[in-house]
Amino acid sequence: MSGEWEEQIRAALGEIPCELVIRDVDIVLCGAGKVAKGDIAVHRGTIVGMLEHYEAQREMDGEGMYALPGFIDGHIHLESSMLTFCEFSKLAVPHGTTALVCDPHEIANVCGLSGIEELMREAASVPLSVFFTAPSCVPATPLETSGARLDASQLEPLIVRDEVVGLAELMNMAGAIHRDPEVMLKVRAARRVHKRVDGHCPLLSGKQLNAYMMAGPSSDHESTLPEEALEKLEKGMWVMIREGSVSKNMEEVLGGLLDAHVDMRRCMLVSDDRHPLDIRKRGYFEGVLTRAIEMGVEPVEAVAMVSLNPAQYFNLDGFGEIAVGKRADIVLTDGLEDISIQRVLVGGKEVASNGKMLADVPSYRFSPALRDTVRLPPLTESSFAVRTHAEDTTRVRVIGVLEDSLITESLRWELPVVDGEIREDVDADVLRIAVVHRHGKTDSIGLGFVRGFGLNGGTIGSTVAHDSHNLVLVGARKRDMLVAAQHLASVGGGFVAVRDGDVVASLQLELAGLMTTASSEEVSTGLDELHRVVAGWGCPLSSPFMTLSFMCLPPIPHLKLTDVGLVEDFSLVSLEVSSL
Amino acid sequence: MSGEWEEQIRAALGEIPCELVIRDVDIVLCGAGKVAKGDIAVHRGTIVGMLEHYEAQREMDGEGMYALPGFIDGHIHLESSMLTFCEFSKLAVPHGTTALVCDPHEIANVCGLSGIEELMREAASVPLSVFFTAPSCVPATPLETSGARLDASQLEPLIVRDEVVGLAELMNMAGAIHRDPEVMLKVRAARRVHKRVDGHCPLLSGKQLNAYMMAGPSSDHESTLPEEALEKLEKGMWVMIREGSVSKNMEEVLGGLLDAHVDMRRCMLVSDDRHPLDIRKRGYFEGVLTRAIEMGVEPVEAVAMVSLNPAQYFNLDGFGEIAVGKRADIVLTDGLEDISIQRVLVGGKEVASNGKMLADVPSYRFSPALRDTVRLPPLTESSFAVRTHAEDTTRVRVIGVLEDSLITESLRWELPVVDGEIREDVDADVLRIAVVHRHGKTDSIGLGFVRGFGLNGGTIGSTVAHDSHNLVLVGARKRDMLVAAQHLASVGGGFVAVRDGDVVASLQLELAGLMTTASSEEVSTGLDELHRVVAGWGCPLSSPFMTLSFMCLPPIPHLKLTDVGLVEDFSLVSLEVSSL
Repeated sequence: MSGEWEEQIRAALGEIPCELVIRDVDIVLCGAGKVAKGDIAVHRGTIVGMLEHYEAQREMDGEGMYALPGFIDGHIHLESSMLTFCEFSKLAVPHGTTALVCDPHEIANVCGLSGIEELMREAASVPLSVFFTAPSCVPATPLETSGARLDASQLEPLIVRDEVVGLAELMNMAGAIHRDPEVMLKVRAARRVHKRVDGHCPLLSGKQLNAYMMAGPSSDHESTLPEEALEKLEKGMWVMIREGSVSKNMEEVLGGLLDAHVDMRRCMLVSDDRHPLDIRKRGYFEGVLTRAIEMGVEPVEAVAMVSLNPAQYFNLDGFGEIAVGKRADIVLTDGLEDISIQRVLVGGKEVASNGKMLADVPSYRFSPALRDTVRLPPLTESSFAVRTHAEDTTRVRVIGVLEDSLITESLRWELPVVDGEIREDVDADVLRIAVVHRHGKTDSIGLGFVRGFGLNGGTIGSTVAHDSHNLVLVGARKRDMLVAAQHLASVGGGFVAVRDGDVVASLQLELAGLMTTASSEEVSTGLDELHRVVAGWGCPLSSPFMTLSFMCLPPIPHLKLTDVGLVEDFSLVSLEVSSL
Repeated sequence: MSGEWEEQIRAALGEIPCELVIRDVDIVLCGAGKVAKGDIAVHRGTIVGMLEHYEAQREMDGEGMYALPGFIDGHIHLESSMLTFCEFSKLAVPHGTTALVCDPHEIANVCGLSGIEELMREAASVPLSVFFTAPSCVPATPLETSGARLDASQLEPLIVRDEVVGLAELMNMAGAIHRDPEVMLKVRAARRVHKRVDGHCPLLSGKQLNAYMMAGPSSDHESTLPEEALEKLEKGMWVMIREGSVSKNMEEVLGGLLDAHVDMRRCMLVSDDRHPLDIRKRGYFEGVLTRAIEMGVEPVEAVAMVSLNPAQYFNLDGFGEIAVGKRADIVLTDGLEDISIQRVLVGGKEVASNGKMLADVPSYRFSPALRDTVRLPPLTESSFAVRTHAEDTTRVRVIGVLEDSLITESLRWELPVVDGEIREDVDADVLRIAVVHRHGKTDSIGLGFVRGFGLNGGTIGSTVAHDSHNLVLVGARKRDMLVAAQHLASVGGGFVAVRDGDVVASLQLELAGLMTTASSEEVSTGLDELHRVVAGWGCPLSSPFMTLSFMCLPPIPHLKLTDVGLVEDFSLVSLEVSSL
């Protein structure tokens, strides 16, 4: 190590040839806020020289190209890609993303610390630099039953680890504001080692936002309104502008910040959740950057939003820019306004070219415990019956789906009652939704209704169901729901579409019921088929299974369903209501 | 502590009144890069709320004023002020400077670790937040004899301390570039605990700069040329633009960076060295900021250069901006273009108003060891004779003083020889200079000639003599030199002006021969008197004693004198030369 460092200084001085020199490239200098043309000299994984002529063991012609720092996704839940780090890196790296800050919140809710440690072990072997935040809210709320709990005493040994850069999004806003002792212990554990506390505070403002910030969080990625992001920025937060596969907030939020003429040094572009299909079709950050630049962000500043800014925020030593002494994670593009990626270097090695991965990525052997996580209570068709004392009709709360948003509406609807059961109204697109505990801890099942899936028949089901990842089902018929549940239990989890008692399409996610060792191609093909089938049943949603997976997430407004029941703005509420 | 934090969250939420609310003030938001009007709520030393209405125990009307974050001087040697932290804070805080990053390099060269620890202990009791960097070059070079040595093993326990934010300016450029094992151990000690390595690399460029950066340093405050600063910034350094009492680099360096249209997020304004006289006459950062804004820096960005930027660079948690959760170090001014300071809050307490300190500052009782540091070898008049084998005349190297610069010229001059001694040439302003070892370790005396002090008679002397702080004397007559040396030895160090065998004026610096417990008024009066006397003797320099103190600093180009002899560009050179 000392020998390597000395050798790098010698190479910088020109005493020995550098392993690689990229010649005559336009270098995007995020720190200086400009572009300068020259050479980049790399030795033993590090940028040892710039803007000087060096002898090289290998040369790369950069003429006509731009060199950008490798992109850093400052907030992502890997589990949402359904891929392992191995497969995700094959997909992400050719698109220029070379570092991730991952919150392993999903696997933590299913498998606890052992799940996080499995991901950390896998991450160590892939050509992506993976940093972690320590999940702060496992379970996310007391309004659901998760597979594991992580209290402050369990997080402490995690937070001190070198690859852990902070406490993950503090979704328990009420706990923070009202000084829940356990929340304060977690924040204190991060602060003690000078690490960040990430926030999660959708629509929070005014004194409540001040109190939340005072409790610790210094970032937020949940702004959906421009004035919301502006208030957070003005009060001192770092604003992660989310443009992922589910939530797309860039147009509004970035647009608003541009209108307000703010400094962008504390803004990042993050994905939060990324589908493999989405990356395959639209790239990772290329389209996002291109659009940000179109909207009016200076190109160098736009690049900084996915490199220097997250590196600065999380104190990622040695990452985030093309500068002497930094890691040689370099993206070569053929333009700077319309970002199109030609070659990608990770730690000085060319690992991707023209969208194709060149490097071999070793696959990791996961613990068998991760494959045995779907443990349902005994189920029959009648488990899915929604009982009532009402006659003829009744009025119920209905979850209203909003496309491209985690937020739902809280609707009210009048539904028919037959034989003591509240029935769905397929014609009005009001379907049955069930959340079945799947971690073998209780027999709880939550039942309700949802509008927006548009299914004219059939049932869809998922063991990906934020944040406790119970089994969620939406459909019209109880028998299809039972078949869907049984199928997912038999394959260790995943997505399924069932009609008339038959499994029509499915995708196995055998790792914690969230992820699979299958390739992104297989996952994409499986999802494509599921989407095709579900679209054929009338579903208007572009990502119906991702939308389905957010139906159970109580920290997000407004109406959600967990295995415990309906939750509205952090409280359990009744299904039936007295008025519309 | 936990109770205090909980109370702050409650105050943020509005559950209890805040201790202080500044109403209707224009708040300079360095993170967001804008100004917003509203209230700032402070409780228990911290900004708990902003831009919302809070009930207050005490209100302050901010109408018509701007609230700026307290200024941070990102690089200063306290010792150069000659004051203790107690007296310095009385001077600096009313001028808006509320935090310092101090390199106790001077006292370290005289007293070693015990001197640093004395300063740290004193710093803990003053109304200034003081951070330290661990002196990396004690002694600065092997070309002089200092009072102490600090090797890597002694620095390690220092660097890990909470108030130590990095390794101080790495002046040993050659050692860094050529991989001196001791230098690498020091850098490694800082990196191991994720702390910064400050640089010092005047005029370094090209591959040598790359190699130097590769060896660790990520900042530099020595740029004197615009292209020099630009190269450092482009290669990834943080650029500290120095505008102190001796070196004034802002016009050229900032002007050049403005012309190059760079992003200023990595630029800071620092003083390096500050005279009390200078602060009393021209303020601390007010004039610097006003001028930077005049030159074209956006006002909010200019403020960030003395607040957010240094806080970001050094990872000063909780400092550097007006934001929720940050320490309430707040400067109230009546304008933002022409900075004039009305009130200063430190940790939420109003400590200064209209340029006057309101708070009591306790004085610290320094260890007696600090008062006994001037230990001269036996001296007679002939100790100052410059012997030669030449007859009639000889050619010598002469140090050429450049006003307002640490850099000197290397001149050559023909001087008369009388009785085997080279004589000064007062008419041509070529005077005798002597550097006498004063730490009781050797009997070494360096002798040479200097041009630029303009003294038509008399001798000036100083025990402040960067970086080893030996005794430096400039004058014409050997007898005056002897008297000056004896006087300074008798008072424990300081400055003196002697003519015709009499001490005409002097300033006692009894702490390590560098500093005094006297007030800034007393120091200013003493210095004023010295300056008046020396100006009367024909000296054209505005700060003759500061200029004198830099005559011995070998890391700075070009020609310097130490107790060991003449040094030119890091090598000992002969006084006499064969040609002009």
